Amino acid sequence: MMSTTVSAFGTQSAEGRLDKMNINRRNPGKRDVYIEITYCGVCHSDIHTARNEWLNSTYPVVPGHEIVGRVLEVGSKVRRFKAGDLVGVGCMVDSCKECAPCKKDLEQFCEKGCTWTYNSPEPDFGRTYGGYSTHITVDQDFVLKIPETIDVRGAAPLLCAGITTWSPLRHWKVGKKDRVGVVGLGGLGHMGIKFANALGAHVVMITRSPEKARDAEALGAHEVLISTDSKAMQAQANSFDFILNTIPVGHEMDPYIGLLKIDATMVLVGAVEPLKPFHGGGVMMGRKRIAGSLIGGIAETQEMLDFCGKHNITCDVEMIDMQEINEAYERVVASDVKYRFVIDMQSLKSQ
Amino acid sequence: MMSTTVSAFGTQSAEGRLDKMNINRRNPGKRDVYIEITYCGVCHSDIHTARNEWLNSTYPVVPGHEIVGRVLEVGSKVRRFKAGDLVGVGCMVDSCKECAPCKKDLEQFCEKGCTWTYNSPEPDFGRTYGGYSTHITVDQDFVLKIPETIDVRGAAPLLCAGITTWSPLRHWKVGKKDRVGVVGLGGLGHMGIKFANALGAHVVMITRSPEKARDAEALGAHEVLISTDSKAMQAQANSFDFILNTIPVGHEMDPYIGLLKIDATMVLVGAVEPLKPFHGGGVMMGRKRIAGSLIGGIAETQEMLDFCGKHNITCDVEMIDMQEINEAYERVVASDVKYRFVIDMQSLKSQ
Repeated sequence: MMSTTVSAFGTQSAEGRLDKMNINRRNPGKRDVYIEITYCGVCHSDIHTARNEWLNSTYPVVPGHEIVGRVLEVGSKVRRFKAGDLVGVGCMVDSCKECAPCKKDLEQFCEKGCTWTYNSPEPDFGRTYGGYSTHITVDQDFVLKIPETIDVRGAAPLLCAGITTWSPLRHWKVGKKDRVGVVGLGGLGHMGIKFANALGAHVVMITRSPEKARDAEALGAHEVLISTDSKAMQAQANSFDFILNTIPVGHEMDPYIGLLKIDATMVLVGAVEPLKPFHGGGVMMGRKRIAGSLIGGIAETQEMLDFCGKHNITCDVEMIDMQEINEAYERVVASDVKYRFVIDMQSLKSQ
Repeated sequence: MMSTTVSAFGTQSAEGRLDKMNINRRNPGKRDVYIEITYCGVCHSDIHTARNEWLNSTYPVVPGHEIVGRVLEVGSKVRRFKAGDLVGVGCMVDSCKECAPCKKDLEQFCEKGCTWTYNSPEPDFGRTYGGYSTHITVDQDFVLKIPETIDVRGAAPLLCAGITTWSPLRHWKVGKKDRVGVVGLGGLGHMGIKFANALGAHVVMITRSPEKARDAEALGAHEVLISTDSKAMQAQANSFDFILNTIPVGHEMDPYIGLLKIDATMVLVGAVEPLKPFHGGGVMMGRKRIAGSLIGGIAETQEMLDFCGKHNITCDVEMIDMQEINEAYERVVASDVKYRFVIDMQSLKSQ
């Protein structure tokens, strides 16, 4: 396997700071696309993995799965991309392509386990390394086209925060006439508002924080419901067709379940950890549903990007240099970012 | 309001034993059916209400919502029933009939609150009194036809245990080719096995108790999966199209969530209380769903009874006299009944 050494930023241990390192990228094979990374978003999963908070990290860890860049080179069998194309890479870089989920465009649920963009087993280099680096080589089937018309910096987080919120809205067929709640206003929640609004729904931001009301409305929420106001919550009981719950930590679910209409669904996309107990009676009375959703398949990600191009939707981002990543992590943990950090990879190249 | 005094069995307090008492039944109005009760099943909800375990009981409480009997008299506007008909009454005796759920045959979710068969507000007598009595007067729209071909004693629990398991199996379209798990083998679980089998599914009894295997197979389970056998559980991970969870108390859900296929649903019908925390990642990975279901509407209950007539399905029951009810309650609490007690109401009449 021929490879090229490129610059990256990563950590050697759960306790360590991220710092500059060199990694190898395979030279593009027949079906590969070799990408010069221009921007990479910062997802909370990057932090969980860098710090081994999910107890599955193998070091060194080079995070980053909200990648945009330009194609530098393509393999001989690549037809969909050519040098110069604006492209994206999300949470996955490969899957078996043969199992039932893969054949149904649900590569994220590949029965053999998809290859995640970082911290995943990789046959040639041991582990995959993510987008905090100058270049990446990716199988063409996992490369997305980014519309040239949208702001590239705000496009990077679409590859994770975007598809994570888009996929459940589409899967549960949210559209006009629907009263949709978005719980939590962070990287995921702010995209949930934008998408639900663009899909024609009546969007209600549900938050504990009254100070977020103005921002939520600017993003496209038609109403704000303060979840700690029990009178307001009671007044909206049984009135939601769908709730997108982006809270990133375990939390009480009964108050939100109470908001659902008969047969309506609340989808969890944020909390990859134990939830708090909910009351069986809450879902029985009204035949209500709680579901999970995990990013989305590649075809659905492309659909989302095309929709964003058509509707000029991007994430609201704060740009940082690669060297500022450790401070940015602290601010993400403190929920102090509107709404996603994006790394300008030029800062790594010029270092 | 003209009324008739009839014999019943009930309790004056949460701590009291059930004993004989007299109650009044309204004389049948134009749309009413006056029924002589022959059998009444004993549901765990009867005990929760008699003992005020749901903190909403108003005394005296006369339980019983798995009622079968013969029509004695009908009002002038009643067309569907006549004296002598074999009929049933389940958990509901009235609803507003005008709200969206009522119009969709989901009277159990009536927006104004349906009138439960016992312990519900009732305009003329203060509270409704249930089927532990010799007679009952019920609006014709809440009276069910019982097929004359099936064993009447085993038919009584169909009115609650039957519809509670039938409704989710039908709503989630369980049928041939489906691999269906039934968790918990009690009054609900044993009907879940019978119905899922009759609907053509491959039925797996999921239980902690290996000693229940033979009974489960006799009821129609094709396989038994012991939930405490982690190897067996792992081997069946992601293999179920649907799980009917009848466990009556709060319990760990993660092991069962792990059994579901992508996009598959586990429906809770037993635990009207807080569940234990489940892991958000368990539903995200595979876009899995947890839902609740509560009895079923009147039309669906009739559909179930007709199906039972056609397929000769009834509950497995143990007959008791009315005077044995307090001992029967202790045995229900100890899960010591296969699978439902049914009261022979002749014992109350002849007392």
